[in-house]
Amino acid sequence: MEVKKEDTSISSVNAITEWLKTLQDNICKSLEEADGQSKFEEENWIREEGGGGRSRVIKNGAVIEKGGVMFSAVHGKAPDFLFKEKEHSASKAPFSLGEGRGDEAVPNFYATGVSIVLHPQNPMVPIVHMNIRYFEMNNGVKWLGGGIDLTPHYVVEEDAKYFHNELKKVCDKHSAKYYAEFKKWADDYFFINHRKETRGIGGIFFDRLNENEEMSFENNLAFWKDVGSAFAPIYTALMNKNKNLPFTEENKKWQLIRRGRYVEFNLVYDKGTKFGLETNGRIESILMSLPAMASWEYNFVPQKNSAEEKTLSFLKKGINW
Amino acid sequence: MEVKKEDTSISSVNAITEWLKTLQDNICKSLEEADGQSKFEEENWIREEGGGGRSRVIKNGAVIEKGGVMFSAVHGKAPDFLFKEKEHSASKAPFSLGEGRGDEAVPNFYATGVSIVLHPQNPMVPIVHMNIRYFEMNNGVKWLGGGIDLTPHYVVEEDAKYFHNELKKVCDKHSAKYYAEFKKWADDYFFINHRKETRGIGGIFFDRLNENEEMSFENNLAFWKDVGSAFAPIYTALMNKNKNLPFTEENKKWQLIRRGRYVEFNLVYDKGTKFGLETNGRIESILMSLPAMASWEYNFVPQKNSAEEKTLSFLKKGINW
Repeated sequence: MEVKKEDTSISSVNAITEWLKTLQDNICKSLEEADGQSKFEEENWIREEGGGGRSRVIKNGAVIEKGGVMFSAVHGKAPDFLFKEKEHSASKAPFSLGEGRGDEAVPNFYATGVSIVLHPQNPMVPIVHMNIRYFEMNNGVKWLGGGIDLTPHYVVEEDAKYFHNELKKVCDKHSAKYYAEFKKWADDYFFINHRKETRGIGGIFFDRLNENEEMSFENNLAFWKDVGSAFAPIYTALMNKNKNLPFTEENKKWQLIRRGRYVEFNLVYDKGTKFGLETNGRIESILMSLPAMASWEYNFVPQKNSAEEKTLSFLKKGINW
Repeated sequence: MEVKKEDTSISSVNAITEWLKTLQDNICKSLEEADGQSKFEEENWIREEGGGGRSRVIKNGAVIEKGGVMFSAVHGKAPDFLFKEKEHSASKAPFSLGEGRGDEAVPNFYATGVSIVLHPQNPMVPIVHMNIRYFEMNNGVKWLGGGIDLTPHYVVEEDAKYFHNELKKVCDKHSAKYYAEFKKWADDYFFINHRKETRGIGGIFFDRLNENEEMSFENNLAFWKDVGSAFAPIYTALMNKNKNLPFTEENKKWQLIRRGRYVEFNLVYDKGTKFGLETNGRIESILMSLPAMASWEYNFVPQKNSAEEKTLSFLKKGINW
């Protein structure tokens, strides 16, 4: 990829890309250990327009029923949608993408990231999602994005507090503002608008992070790496704590219904999925986020005072865990 | 609803609405007879902005696992999207919706229709969808739309020929051009672009039908009614023919995967679903089209020379059944 001379991103691109591949390795290793039964299967793929990826998928584990830890690094001419998309209101990205356009030729882009979705067997273990991504163009524009969010089939307050507190620690290490800002961003992003409910208990979400009044790009990169590194310890702790809990047929039925909601979010709202489907991405890698099995029941309403009803009461924005 | 004096649509609106309710009654009766076990459950709902509907849902039948026959009649201020949407290239609608705008106030609209999706238990019985709808505004604009399409889990050529031939007969009775035109429209519409496969074997699809060089509105209305009336005999014949066929666990697994594709189409592409989700429609009525259970398997590829592979080979546009 062509980069301006004064830009140091050749080295950082390579370093970031290598760091992400190592992260993928480490996360897969941690998850295999915690699962204790299944191993990831790897598939390397090439993108016609430039770049490719290393997909790792696990299925029929003792804890994880279906999931993926996907690495990709793609490049080429920057797609049109990048110059149209509105930035999130909470974004502090200090540049306009318009910089890349004007009378110049379309800039080249390079995008690399790791994406994870895990659907557990036991309904007492939450679904989890993590993504961190780095994006740059050869006009000097570059940014970091990412997030982790948790979708418990049954919201357990202790686990929710633990999850959010761990993310807060990662944020606080770098900025006193990030947790509040990125937690709100996750609440807003992981929202199933037609159901008027959040996908789960949220987490953190951020995009287009470069530098701002208190943080250099290098500082934000350190934060971003810490988000990636925090994933495995946080989630394997939740796996280990809950994987042996007993469950009923009713719990399983509810799990399938919650997975149906997960499918609704991913196919109707998720930007990564939309982007992938619209830009001729690798379908199997994009849709690895969908569960092995999901269900829809007409007009399902949980029983009064049930654990299911309690969970629904937690699926809203703005809860201070 | 306010209608211009020279417009006769008050009477036709009432007549069309009543005709649709009777159609819903008749279809439900036919399906209950053919199912032999389950009955439809009815729910009446009111739309805050005007109108409402009569939802009829069936589940756990001997033949139909989950399905709905939904009637609705809604009205109010015409939503913005109507003035933006591009017409299908094959459409011969002789008016521009822009007529309703300009410096005038936003016109009122009235829309009524019957929508059906049925997911059978036995994978040898196809999934079916039918919709007929009537739309008008108090500026004189009015049109008819609709379609029937079949999604066999296993494509059986004899059944596909029967299905298309029955639809051709309905079309040919009214216009020598309609079957070819509306069959192509269905091929184009019921297409899962990211999979590069059709949802099923298509059928017919049409929209914004008013009057054209060879057909008056009244003639098109007669055609439209015949489409609605054709649904029950065509589909109950397919139910009866296939409902007792034996099937294996492998067949059932494939059925769940095909249902996953059905979910993908409906959540990603279907205009009715999108419209409903974006305009705060009644979610349970909109998403009744989703199956009781669906599955996603990473990188699933059917075995060479299997019935599943043969079915995939039929999931493309332009097959002349």
